[in-house]
Amino acid sequence: MAASNGERITKKAFGWAARDSSGVLSPFHFNRRETGEKDVTFKVLYSGICHTDLHMIKNDWGISLYPLVPGHELVGVVTEVGSKVQKFQVGDKVGVGYLVGSCNSCDSCVNDLENYCAKIIPTCSAEYHDGTTTYGGFSDLMVADEHFVFRIPDNLPLDATAPLLCAGITVYSPLRHFGLDKPGTHVGIVGLGGLGHLAVKFAKAMGAKVTVISTSPSKKVEAIEHLGADSFLASRDQDQLLAATSTMDGIIDTVSAVHPLLPLLGLLKSQGKLIMVGAPDKPLELPVFPLLLGRKMVAGTVTGGMKETQEMIDFAAKHNITSQIEVIPMDYVNTAMERLKKGDVRYRFVIDVGQTLNS
Amino acid sequence: MAASNGERITKKAFGWAARDSSGVLSPFHFNRRETGEKDVTFKVLYSGICHTDLHMIKNDWGISLYPLVPGHELVGVVTEVGSKVQKFQVGDKVGVGYLVGSCNSCDSCVNDLENYCAKIIPTCSAEYHDGTTTYGGFSDLMVADEHFVFRIPDNLPLDATAPLLCAGITVYSPLRHFGLDKPGTHVGIVGLGGLGHLAVKFAKAMGAKVTVISTSPSKKVEAIEHLGADSFLASRDQDQLLAATSTMDGIIDTVSAVHPLLPLLGLLKSQGKLIMVGAPDKPLELPVFPLLLGRKMVAGTVTGGMKETQEMIDFAAKHNITSQIEVIPMDYVNTAMERLKKGDVRYRFVIDVGQTLNS
Repeated sequence: MAASNGERITKKAFGWAARDSSGVLSPFHFNRRETGEKDVTFKVLYSGICHTDLHMIKNDWGISLYPLVPGHELVGVVTEVGSKVQKFQVGDKVGVGYLVGSCNSCDSCVNDLENYCAKIIPTCSAEYHDGTTTYGGFSDLMVADEHFVFRIPDNLPLDATAPLLCAGITVYSPLRHFGLDKPGTHVGIVGLGGLGHLAVKFAKAMGAKVTVISTSPSKKVEAIEHLGADSFLASRDQDQLLAATSTMDGIIDTVSAVHPLLPLLGLLKSQGKLIMVGAPDKPLELPVFPLLLGRKMVAGTVTGGMKETQEMIDFAAKHNITSQIEVIPMDYVNTAMERLKKGDVRYRFVIDVGQTLNS
Repeated sequence: MAASNGERITKKAFGWAARDSSGVLSPFHFNRRETGEKDVTFKVLYSGICHTDLHMIKNDWGISLYPLVPGHELVGVVTEVGSKVQKFQVGDKVGVGYLVGSCNSCDSCVNDLENYCAKIIPTCSAEYHDGTTTYGGFSDLMVADEHFVFRIPDNLPLDATAPLLCAGITVYSPLRHFGLDKPGTHVGIVGLGGLGHLAVKFAKAMGAKVTVISTSPSKKVEAIEHLGADSFLASRDQDQLLAATSTMDGIIDTVSAVHPLLPLLGLLKSQGKLIMVGAPDKPLELPVFPLLLGRKMVAGTVTGGMKETQEMIDFAAKHNITSQIEVIPMDYVNTAMERLKKGDVRYRFVIDVGQTLNS
């Protein structure tokens, strides 16, 4: 119930938090708000681990609030709904992604682009409307405004669906927005990790021809035989680059390390689009001539709006798209973070919160 | 007439050419092809000087063919037309811009984007279909396929119209293509030179709100009082930059020098577009975060297609848009090039070819 007299009514929660920029996670007891009128409360069963979690627990971007409970790819089962909740009821399978709030009134919000609202409230380590700090999915329960809660169709396994809520929408949204979702379109996917492997699956399901572009030639078999890509391009092989010049309508670049854009721009046809969804922390070198000579663009996108995210989940359900995951117990999370840093996971860690988070 | 037996039939022409990468221009006698079936021959009256001419005469891009007759903003009066020419007749006022040929069959060509054809044939220093070298507008006459010839409406003065054929279309095309041509749209124009001053005029005529962005605060009066911009932003003034954060729908960046993009990206609203039309010869630093957080883009465009260029000229005629020029005699061209290099011209040199080119 909502607080009526200024007194904050809370419920006990338990999870794992980082306490400082060492990033080491350990058990943490905290409070969440009581289920408000428009809130959905759910028992968290699984929570994916995203690279952003790694950056946030270590305060790489200088914006972390400690204690910090990570996790913005969380799914579970509804245990309580507020009196004005319309879309959900107890027992529903649901999930929450990168954000739990926005201003609800700006141009972005009214156009279903809450993810671009200047007052976006991330699921972890941000200040919520009521002044409290947001805590993420490495925890036993979640309370969120129903506008930011998604329905998970029954045919999707909860564990392998969790990563769709950030990694999935992060690649789905630019494929749709930039028109790379049509049969006959040739799409390049740079980097075969958490984001990249889902980009291959979504682009293929949309009907595009997909080429995986990677610095690791060893990923060719995985890309083509397991993920269904049409072709593979070793990005340090000049002959392969040359042979693929001007063949792609768009490229989804998932790489967060600093890397050269010139070879990628060369792969694009005239009017081609290079879409960055990774977040290098240093500027990249942008050669301007290749942009000019083909009216090419470099754009960036981040996650997706609420309406589009639900569309993505429903599309995934229809096409049986889930993440390739490694399920881990809660107390393995620090090791998982070390492995994630080295790229040692195919392709996403998902914590079995429901069965392994013991207070 | 076209050659019928392999023998090339030519006509005498005279102009000024650079002979080597010193870039010094001097009188030059050469041949042009005889008027072919689809060709228009015209007496050149005026020819604008573009920064690209400066780069080409000095072989800055390593692609120059000498002797090199520059000039790709040329206008004049038709003296002869081929038997299959449909759009023009003797006495018409016409012009030619950056290109005189393309492949006519690729996706770009069939979609009226000849300027993005991979086999584009520039007006100067390129190999034409027949194997001859193309010579530009610093000459007494021009022969060009009618597809690459534009009609100049009677109400436009020929001298001040010449720069529209490259500088004008270079800024008009991205304003149209990227939807920055609507009343209520806020457009930033970076750099107030040959391109920038025309961008202000076109964007205003399209109904946009226009802010000139320049490193030179001294250009404020010129921008607002003479060119009709709505406001002016000194791009090294942090307070002004901060005050204008997230206010612009798009920016046309005409600057060819290496310069920071971060402040410009900050001026854009969510979904904003930064369009490069200048050509820095070194890569620029591209910070990726600002792209991601607002689904912003950096794109580049170069000149325009034939259909759009004619539209631009007709739009200019309707709205009385011409270039602000300094008319010079042919034998002043080397001095003009030196001044252009220093940015010492408001805003475009135009050579009075018709009255001052003496053989």
